[in-house]
Amino acid sequence: MLISIVAGGSGFIGVNLVSRLIKEGRCVVVLDNFSRGSQSFLPAFSSLSHLHVFQCDCSIKSQIVNAFELVSKMGQVDEVWHLAANSDIPAGISDPSVDLKDTFLTTYELLNCMRIFDIPCLNFASSSAIYGDLGDKAISESAGPLLPISNYGAMKLASEGIISAAVEAFLKKANLFRFPNVVGVPATHGVILDFFNKLLINPMRLDVLGDGSQRKSYLHVSDLIEAMIVVARASIGNHVEVVNIGPSDSGVTVKWIAEQVAKRVGTNPDIVLGIGNKGWVGDVPKFAYSIDKISQYGWRPKLDSSQAIELAVDEIAQQVGF
Amino acid sequence: MLISIVAGGSGFIGVNLVSRLIKEGRCVVVLDNFSRGSQSFLPAFSSLSHLHVFQCDCSIKSQIVNAFELVSKMGQVDEVWHLAANSDIPAGISDPSVDLKDTFLTTYELLNCMRIFDIPCLNFASSSAIYGDLGDKAISESAGPLLPISNYGAMKLASEGIISAAVEAFLKKANLFRFPNVVGVPATHGVILDFFNKLLINPMRLDVLGDGSQRKSYLHVSDLIEAMIVVARASIGNHVEVVNIGPSDSGVTVKWIAEQVAKRVGTNPDIVLGIGNKGWVGDVPKFAYSIDKISQYGWRPKLDSSQAIELAVDEIAQQVGF
Repeated sequence: MLISIVAGGSGFIGVNLVSRLIKEGRCVVVLDNFSRGSQSFLPAFSSLSHLHVFQCDCSIKSQIVNAFELVSKMGQVDEVWHLAANSDIPAGISDPSVDLKDTFLTTYELLNCMRIFDIPCLNFASSSAIYGDLGDKAISESAGPLLPISNYGAMKLASEGIISAAVEAFLKKANLFRFPNVVGVPATHGVILDFFNKLLINPMRLDVLGDGSQRKSYLHVSDLIEAMIVVARASIGNHVEVVNIGPSDSGVTVKWIAEQVAKRVGTNPDIVLGIGNKGWVGDVPKFAYSIDKISQYGWRPKLDSSQAIELAVDEIAQQVGF
Repeated sequence: MLISIVAGGSGFIGVNLVSRLIKEGRCVVVLDNFSRGSQSFLPAFSSLSHLHVFQCDCSIKSQIVNAFELVSKMGQVDEVWHLAANSDIPAGISDPSVDLKDTFLTTYELLNCMRIFDIPCLNFASSSAIYGDLGDKAISESAGPLLPISNYGAMKLASEGIISAAVEAFLKKANLFRFPNVVGVPATHGVILDFFNKLLINPMRLDVLGDGSQRKSYLHVSDLIEAMIVVARASIGNHVEVVNIGPSDSGVTVKWIAEQVAKRVGTNPDIVLGIGNKGWVGDVPKFAYSIDKISQYGWRPKLDSSQAIELAVDEIAQQVGF
């Protein structure tokens, strides 16, 4: 049985991916420091003999080398999925060391291990944040210049760069998946969870960061996982494959999302809009992808942005007990 | 008198820049660890009261914060020029920690100091290496995807990213100068110096890395300095300016450069070509810039690639004593 290592496998997207890889018939080893994810997110599989969870900070050389040493004794590892990162963008802006360590040095140390243990393929969770604020146009994979406006985006871009150089030097294959905003459960962060948490504290008032006009596209995590698997299993050859994953629609506004959450909670709260078209420093106010490239793999999202939000609002409501 | 801090100011390009900034009437503080540059490159100015040289490893927080603390007591610092980097691309491929530390963490720590000491403007020596191998087309600033094939290129790209994020968060202005291959004196590395050094050891044989067909454009350091000053003094507003600096010609081959050096040495050596169109892992075999953007600043190179090489061959011959 081939082994997939999933760095950050106990986070929001990680647990969904792990579930899918196990269904594929793979043995999965999760490496996670549980800073944001939780081992409790993996209960349905924890009794399975082909899921192993190691507590490991992937940015610390001694810890990650030890973990790879152990995994290499279990069998043949043919791929690494790298989803470990800081997911709190504002935190990384006030303290750049957060993204340096959690978003970039995790990549750096994973590549070092892949070289040492001769693992051929890396699937990397990159981000639309690498594009910065390119305005209204639908962004294709060859868009530039790449001027991220957050340290999170900068350290995802740095990771793409060092992975690309590794493919030139020793790695056989890398897929760089540029994620959009992804919604679903188990939610650990993001706009929908924030709104629910605010309404748990005060059911009659919902404050929105920014003026609510920020318009972004959203993908449901189920569509994201499907897209990654389609590309990872189809793409061949020794090279770097870069793909945008997202819906092709122009998205929904933050104000509209607030309204959906308010409706679900049912207390008819005042929705109080802030000022400016950015929720925080590093927030990209408008964002839409071109998905021509991934369409060539035969993938299309099942849900558009509004459907993805509606489903996720329902799922997260159950998660937080509404 | 306004102060310019020049990180890496004792290297090849650094000393040329320092000379020019002093002619502009500025006070210059060089921060350098002298790993590749040398304080001896700065003799003509060392008696000047408006040049100060501090030994400092810019990738080490305690050293660089101390240096900025000292400089801030000397007067008002209104700009930083960041030219500190590893310049040995193959060294950074066999050991990625070289470029992590010297090419990226220098940027990271400089930005931290610029935030602490409230310095508004950063001029950064980026590189054509961020573009990777885009083949034959003339590369404009908006070319993508950016898939560098060396860790040097990856860590220059990472630096661009984190500088861009800093402009969103606290920095007023950043100019990202994407350097081509630059030639001139004092040469510390590069193809011409390598050829001279080989002929010093064996005047009858000159080995070329790769088959010599690699075709690249070259800029003389005098043209580079002029281009950076033109942009730095002209560009206004709070944003990130990205500019390619280079000649617009399609360059010269490595074989032709070998012939020029051989001719200058005059021993009629056998020029022995290697195999493959890359001199080393991470070498980009073909490379030409679009310089439409910098042309709008009124800058044109005085020397094309072949003229730049011819002048540099003559200058480096004198440097090494031929």
